[in-house]
Amino acid sequence: MRILGIDPGLRVTGFGLIEREGNALRYIASGCIRTDQAATLPQRLGTIFDGIAELLAQYAPEQAAVEQVFVNVNPQSTLLLGQARGAAIAALVAGKVEVLEYTALQVKQAVVGNGHAGKEQVQHMVRRLLSLPGAPGADAADALACAIAHAHGGQGLGKLPTAGYRMRRGRLLAVR
Amino acid sequence: MRILGIDPGLRVTGFGLIEREGNALRYIASGCIRTDQAATLPQRLGTIFDGIAELLAQYAPEQAAVEQVFVNVNPQSTLLLGQARGAAIAALVAGKVEVLEYTALQVKQAVVGNGHAGKEQVQHMVRRLLSLPGAPGADAADALACAIAHAHGGQGLGKLPTAGYRMRRGRLLAVR
Repeated sequence: MRILGIDPGLRVTGFGLIEREGNALRYIASGCIRTDQAATLPQRLGTIFDGIAELLAQYAPEQAAVEQVFVNVNPQSTLLLGQARGAAIAALVAGKVEVLEYTALQVKQAVVGNGHAGKEQVQHMVRRLLSLPGAPGADAADALACAIAHAHGGQGLGKLPTAGYRMRRGRLLAVR
Repeated sequence: MRILGIDPGLRVTGFGLIEREGNALRYIASGCIRTDQAATLPQRLGTIFDGIAELLAQYAPEQAAVEQVFVNVNPQSTLLLGQARGAAIAALVAGKVEVLEYTALQVKQAVVGNGHAGKEQVQHMVRRLLSLPGAPGADAADALACAIAHAHGGQGLGKLPTAGYRMRRGRLLAVR
């Protein structure tokens, strides 16, 4: 089972690919898709879409785990972030990849065992769980962590996210 | 020149197709793409993406005009709306259609001559300008109005929208 983790953003979209064989996890690739800040919004969304389409063509993951994004204090930033996330998910759905969503809380709980762990702790555990020789970049680490959370039997948010969200400490959580 | 106007939304995405021949505008089609509220967010974004891809296949527009969306008071709604808009724009860019963005102010200015005109006035002028036998639905009318604004020589927001927005009366406007 090959899993693509995605941490969407308009400027930088992190990605991480892992493979699960039984209980073992194997690292395949990670990195990020960067958009040109001088380009128009449609061009930037196109870069994200094309970048993910290329990943699907190259690595053929069966499932994708997408991290819930921050709801920024600034509504304009929230809208831009939403658009980046929409383009990323559209690319996955268009590529016939099953998409599951995870909150940052779920990801940290699965990777570190503590939903409120810091970024460095997540990076450390991602490196350990995948036996990486060095720490991946922050965006790639978040994407890999999301893929790991899914590989560890996560079920995603299911149908909840469309019904509504609630906010907690500036993060989006699914309504229970 | 065939122009596709889009008024994006997670629940309902309005669309309107018109053709410009010299100074004359001709109505081709309009309607809306509705998503299943019981489906997951990725499924709903997929519906929007596929719906627009079908429109491109059927009508082959050369350019698309997309209306700027409201920034809702509720950050969760803003994020959902952003994702719908991102999926819609990704479908257009993936279909090699040139995408231009218009604020509601620009659209109303172009169609009614008053940036603060009411919805009914916009619907009335859309019907008149396209010689329609009846008023189109609200979502379709907004999408047609956006296409008309572009057909009337609009240049869109250009590269501004990625640099930042400003808010006015709950609407997003490009920073000048």
